[in-house]
Amino acid sequence: MSDLPSAITIREVGPREGFQFEKGPIETARKIELVDALSDTGLKHIQVTSFVSPKWVPQMADADEITEKFRKVPGVEYDALYLNDRGLERALSHGVYHFRGHLTMVASNVFAKTNTNKTIDELIAAIPTRIALYKQHGIKTRAVGVQAAFGCNYQGDVPLEDVLKVVGAAIDVAAEHGETIEEIRLSDTMGWGNPIQMKRMIGAVQDRWPEASISLHLHDTRATAMANAMAGLEMGVADFDSSVGGLGGCPFASHKGSAGNIVTEDLAFMCEEMGIATGVDVDKLIECAKLAEDIVGHPLPSKLMRGGSLNRIREAAKQAALA
Amino acid sequence: MSDLPSAITIREVGPREGFQFEKGPIETARKIELVDALSDTGLKHIQVTSFVSPKWVPQMADADEITEKFRKVPGVEYDALYLNDRGLERALSHGVYHFRGHLTMVASNVFAKTNTNKTIDELIAAIPTRIALYKQHGIKTRAVGVQAAFGCNYQGDVPLEDVLKVVGAAIDVAAEHGETIEEIRLSDTMGWGNPIQMKRMIGAVQDRWPEASISLHLHDTRATAMANAMAGLEMGVADFDSSVGGLGGCPFASHKGSAGNIVTEDLAFMCEEMGIATGVDVDKLIECAKLAEDIVGHPLPSKLMRGGSLNRIREAAKQAALA
Repeated sequence: MSDLPSAITIREVGPREGFQFEKGPIETARKIELVDALSDTGLKHIQVTSFVSPKWVPQMADADEITEKFRKVPGVEYDALYLNDRGLERALSHGVYHFRGHLTMVASNVFAKTNTNKTIDELIAAIPTRIALYKQHGIKTRAVGVQAAFGCNYQGDVPLEDVLKVVGAAIDVAAEHGETIEEIRLSDTMGWGNPIQMKRMIGAVQDRWPEASISLHLHDTRATAMANAMAGLEMGVADFDSSVGGLGGCPFASHKGSAGNIVTEDLAFMCEEMGIATGVDVDKLIECAKLAEDIVGHPLPSKLMRGGSLNRIREAAKQAALA
Repeated sequence: MSDLPSAITIREVGPREGFQFEKGPIETARKIELVDALSDTGLKHIQVTSFVSPKWVPQMADADEITEKFRKVPGVEYDALYLNDRGLERALSHGVYHFRGHLTMVASNVFAKTNTNKTIDELIAAIPTRIALYKQHGIKTRAVGVQAAFGCNYQGDVPLEDVLKVVGAAIDVAAEHGETIEEIRLSDTMGWGNPIQMKRMIGAVQDRWPEASISLHLHDTRATAMANAMAGLEMGVADFDSSVGGLGGCPFASHKGSAGNIVTEDLAFMCEEMGIATGVDVDKLIECAKLAEDIVGHPLPSKLMRGGSLNRIREAAKQAALA
């Protein structure tokens, strides 16, 4: 337990991952309503939307409008997803977003081909172009993300060595172009990970790149996300993606109703209960989760939204004891 | 990770906890159908029903009929819940059940009064009568269970010392009557526990009673059950209650739709993925979870039921790689 961080950073990805996944149309005003509510919870990092082709993801056709209209709260860092140079340039044009200088890699060749239409080698070969584009806009390349780092629905198990190899390759190419990778983001894209595997993987990455920080992007497809997050915390990981209410399913699971990202309020609650500061107000997050459920019009997987936080119960119990 | 057990025992409590909680009537034949399906999954311990007053729990009025009619599979140990001597005698009369010689204690005085109408002291004072009744039927008293061991909706936080005190008292009274407690069952009845608290509590109990084994009864009211189970596993705990599909809500949560027991197939999946043998067939459990969902007529919280196990995906990926 000695490596537990005293505080963690949560990057809220619900508005992006969540709405992207919804089949029915969602009013732009309601998406903005959720982003605005999230800005008042204490969250310091919110991924607002996705600059992808409206042809492929019609749900994200309003990315520019959302970006113009949502309330920018000082002290909150907003970002957006982009998959190619065109998307990055659209995102940049607004002057609103914080750019993490992120290189997205994939640990499974089959998934790389399926999801990006490139092999792993081609993804690595494309790094210099991306770094050049970042440089052109004054963005420092500082993070490498690995999708399918813990297993892949198309390839099956993903060996730890394959993850180290792709991270190493990206770090080397970045170094050749004068950039230092400070953050390694491991994504359990399809919900294959288990806590022991997490600890082994994180330990191996820490051993090899002790200067870099590790962040986790976890999916709860098979109910392991909270235990995996705990494994990460015990290894000193202090940076997590999560999704309010559990917005966003898993497009790669066998059932479209399966769970998506780890739930922001569930993760924040567990951390706060263990004395790990998150900076967020769990009860306000629960209200956001209820809003999100109202917006998408179907139940979301959040447990805390239904079980309730302990704040009010503790207070009521204290009052009852005094009475 | 060194204390991880190589195998665990799962005690399925879904038919009892689950149906007890359902509001609508459920046909006796369908309850039996689920018990029979569970008997073929590799589970070795199934809690079938509850011998409680039909006046208080009408859903369990068919306990005797179920007991007579379900298929008894050799090698599977069946048990049933009872709250008082009358219920125990009803359960005994069938000659079907395995009796664990269990003494149920509560760590929160307020919850003890609310749930059992007795104070903790009165629960302890009643132990000799229960031991005498067990003895009369040739049952060895061997387990102490503590409800609300990790927190209480009525009392608030439950100090670790209060748990040790009530366990110690029960063990002492049992010893005075010639009985040795071999198992201490810690119940997170209202879903308050977190992984660090689990490790501290389990560690303290192990330090004080190193000869006794510990079992966990976890509720997922606030999304911590899987992380709490993992904390238990890392402390060497090898005995868990769980509920197929996640049958059974939490009657003490603020919302009646909140999650109940930890999900059998989710727990078994995580263990098997980490190389911890459970003896159960996860895919067969998923089929049971689907059956349970069909019987209760509303969605159950199981993640694996929707996300799917990895067996078929691994096999398909292997075939694809060979093709």
